Amino acid sequence: MVAALSGTEALSLGSLALACIGVLFNTFQGEGAPLVASIAFSGLAYAACYALIRWLGPAFVRRGFKGRDLCKTKQTEIPETMGAVCAMVYIFVLIVFIPWPFYKDIVAATSGGGNRDVMKELEEVETGRLLHKFPHNKLASYLSALLSLQCIVLLGIGDDLFDIRWRHKVLIPAVAAIPMLIVYFVDFGVTQMVVPTPLRPYLGDLFDLGWLYYVYMAMLSIFSSNSINILAGINGIEVAQSLVIALLIVLNDALYLSPFAPYPHPATDSHLFSLYLLLPFIGVSLALLKHNWYPAKVFVGDTYCYFAGMVFAVDGILGHFSKTLMLLLLPQAFNFVYSAPQLFHLVPCPRHRLPHFNARTGLLECSRFEFKKPPAAPIAAVLMLLHRLRLLHVETDERGELRSCSNFTLINLWLVWFGPMREDRLALGLLAFQAAVGVLGLFIRHRAALLIFTQDNW
Amino acid sequence: MVAALSGTEALSLGSLALACIGVLFNTFQGEGAPLVASIAFSGLAYAACYALIRWLGPAFVRRGFKGRDLCKTKQTEIPETMGAVCAMVYIFVLIVFIPWPFYKDIVAATSGGGNRDVMKELEEVETGRLLHKFPHNKLASYLSALLSLQCIVLLGIGDDLFDIRWRHKVLIPAVAAIPMLIVYFVDFGVTQMVVPTPLRPYLGDLFDLGWLYYVYMAMLSIFSSNSINILAGINGIEVAQSLVIALLIVLNDALYLSPFAPYPHPATDSHLFSLYLLLPFIGVSLALLKHNWYPAKVFVGDTYCYFAGMVFAVDGILGHFSKTLMLLLLPQAFNFVYSAPQLFHLVPCPRHRLPHFNARTGLLECSRFEFKKPPAAPIAAVLMLLHRLRLLHVETDERGELRSCSNFTLINLWLVWFGPMREDRLALGLLAFQAAVGVLGLFIRHRAALLIFTQDNW
Repeated sequence: MVAALSGTEALSLGSLALACIGVLFNTFQGEGAPLVASIAFSGLAYAACYALIRWLGPAFVRRGFKGRDLCKTKQTEIPETMGAVCAMVYIFVLIVFIPWPFYKDIVAATSGGGNRDVMKELEEVETGRLLHKFPHNKLASYLSALLSLQCIVLLGIGDDLFDIRWRHKVLIPAVAAIPMLIVYFVDFGVTQMVVPTPLRPYLGDLFDLGWLYYVYMAMLSIFSSNSINILAGINGIEVAQSLVIALLIVLNDALYLSPFAPYPHPATDSHLFSLYLLLPFIGVSLALLKHNWYPAKVFVGDTYCYFAGMVFAVDGILGHFSKTLMLLLLPQAFNFVYSAPQLFHLVPCPRHRLPHFNARTGLLECSRFEFKKPPAAPIAAVLMLLHRLRLLHVETDERGELRSCSNFTLINLWLVWFGPMREDRLALGLLAFQAAVGVLGLFIRHRAALLIFTQDNW
Repeated sequence: MVAALSGTEALSLGSLALACIGVLFNTFQGEGAPLVASIAFSGLAYAACYALIRWLGPAFVRRGFKGRDLCKTKQTEIPETMGAVCAMVYIFVLIVFIPWPFYKDIVAATSGGGNRDVMKELEEVETGRLLHKFPHNKLASYLSALLSLQCIVLLGIGDDLFDIRWRHKVLIPAVAAIPMLIVYFVDFGVTQMVVPTPLRPYLGDLFDLGWLYYVYMAMLSIFSSNSINILAGINGIEVAQSLVIALLIVLNDALYLSPFAPYPHPATDSHLFSLYLLLPFIGVSLALLKHNWYPAKVFVGDTYCYFAGMVFAVDGILGHFSKTLMLLLLPQAFNFVYSAPQLFHLVPCPRHRLPHFNARTGLLECSRFEFKKPPAAPIAAVLMLLHRLRLLHVETDERGELRSCSNFTLINLWLVWFGPMREDRLALGLLAFQAAVGVLGLFIRHRAALLIFTQDNW
């Protein structure tokens, strides 16, 4: 990777940045248009992130943030942990964006010695349709989201620096979720959920989950962050899957904000909030993907996976659509369940479960683990059953005993299904799968909600 | 340094932590007592920070965060950047502390689909004297303080990792101040200052600084953070000076909160706010000082200096006593002005300006720089004048031309004044000076305020 930007790159990034700044200046006129501003900020985030990844790459390598790409013929060392750059740009943009959705006109009547801050609201701000401003009291929840995201970046960098043990790693997102949960507790404290109609005779209309609701939110953060981290290993897959999920959430948000949706709708604010968090994320992720897509010039590091997962968790929780979020993470959930036998050591788990790179063909093949001793009979039976269901590929020796088995990850399963293929084809296939499952999930969610709730909140 | 805690250490830290947890549980009863809780949290912060510094030391060394102590006979490598541990513990404690000062009783009436959060305040919380709760709307400014502190930690770690250039470094605190400034802008927007009485005929009672107020706040952050970073270099001095400043601010806060102060006073809230930020800081700093005091077993790194300075800046700005803060930073300001000729290369500036360690005596002597060519006549005249005022020490050759000169730092000046001394004696001397200047400053501030303002806001 060349650290300096080429002339064309500098020119296009520069023009993009200038255009975005122009748009931003225009939003100052009149009431301001937060959504337009958010789009402009996302463009700026893309430009800044793109340039910083290039400029900082060599410094990262010098400081030991580097790795070799095992799925290439020529394994040069490339910068690692570039997700940290992404995350920093993202957080900075979200901070600078604060005045657009939250600013209210204030006249300070007196400020004696800086102690008395008597304020008077000039007038209610007029609200347009899509672009209206937030109630000011949502500022605290926005700030808590930022705190949680900063926490995950700090802890992610700690992980990339010190290689924290697996059992500690899993809890990192739960720790990072604490600011959000505490502010939720202090500021809102709503822990009730709407009961599906069939259960209402037993539980009532609303069921108070109490502290279990906080456990649920922490679990969601853990699941969301680690699920990106676990469906990883080939060029571009971490960033690209995050982009697909982000775009699907944006699609879902757009359903609530489109001119055909009822207005004013109680969920409008939540989904605007969600967009404000996601658009800049899409900006920085695109810039990272540009460098991380096959053949990768940088690696993203655990920081990015945690960070992306946390963006989704924060977005789902504070945007009040955590159940929809889980629908979009179904491929990740499947991957986790599918991986469980290896993660919990029911069958042997090699250090790396990346696909195997065949240097002769240049294609990736599914990687396998060998059985040093034959597995117990019930396990062998289950593995053979999965093999017949085409959910695994096992090899047996001449006596019919298991010799080796494909690794339990979605990436390997894809290679079992469709045979060896080039790294980018593999990534594209998985992304198409992710997108298809997500679109189907959203369709079912909005169609089927009426079956178990009295109304879809759309 | 031994990574494991000794039996005695484990026992005392354990007992301290248990006692603090006991106190915390007690604060749940009745209305809760934020100040008591804050003290208990500070104890916990001390225990956690102490243990973590020991446990994480070897990991830091392995990852390249290590340095040699140039002022010792035996220069072993010891962990560097341990201030990052400190800062992480501090931030975590401040986050977990949020419910104590800010919690208000909330009853969630309905939560249809998680979208409608209709709330009803049960009752006004009763407020005691010292221990009363904050108006809930101060939450945003507390969260913005946390964001700024997290930013400075992220940027500080970046600096310790990548050795950012001096001219970029200076701006780090200004970047980190942005969250606080933006929330200040969005939430308060008070940019007026009280005009001293003699100037009132010209400027009116209040003078609106407008955007200059934000520049002022950013400058204060830059000054405060860098001033700790510049008065540095001998064992314990960074942490100990921060502790002295923190204790002086606590003293000032106590003046407003003591039973003899008028109550309710408009400044009570601000000074409680200040205490909540400072007490845990004192906790983590004490734990760090214990390991960083002569002979140092760990180094603090730039992260700590930035972080400490930012704590003061945030505290002064959001606690509305930024001018008092500057009084307490007078020795740092003097050190900066005194250093300026070298920083701006009016006279030669060697790479390190640490005192010189005399291995024979075991004492520190003031370090000097040599003139490669004689300085210009006016500069030489000024240096000779300063020498005569005992503000420098120059050596001349037999022809009366300048040969060498003591380095322009307060630490070297102290050695010029009082002669060679051991490292800890030097640190103690400087701390006594810092404390004396601070106490005098506070005295003058509260006595003299009436001369230029119509009333002391005490």
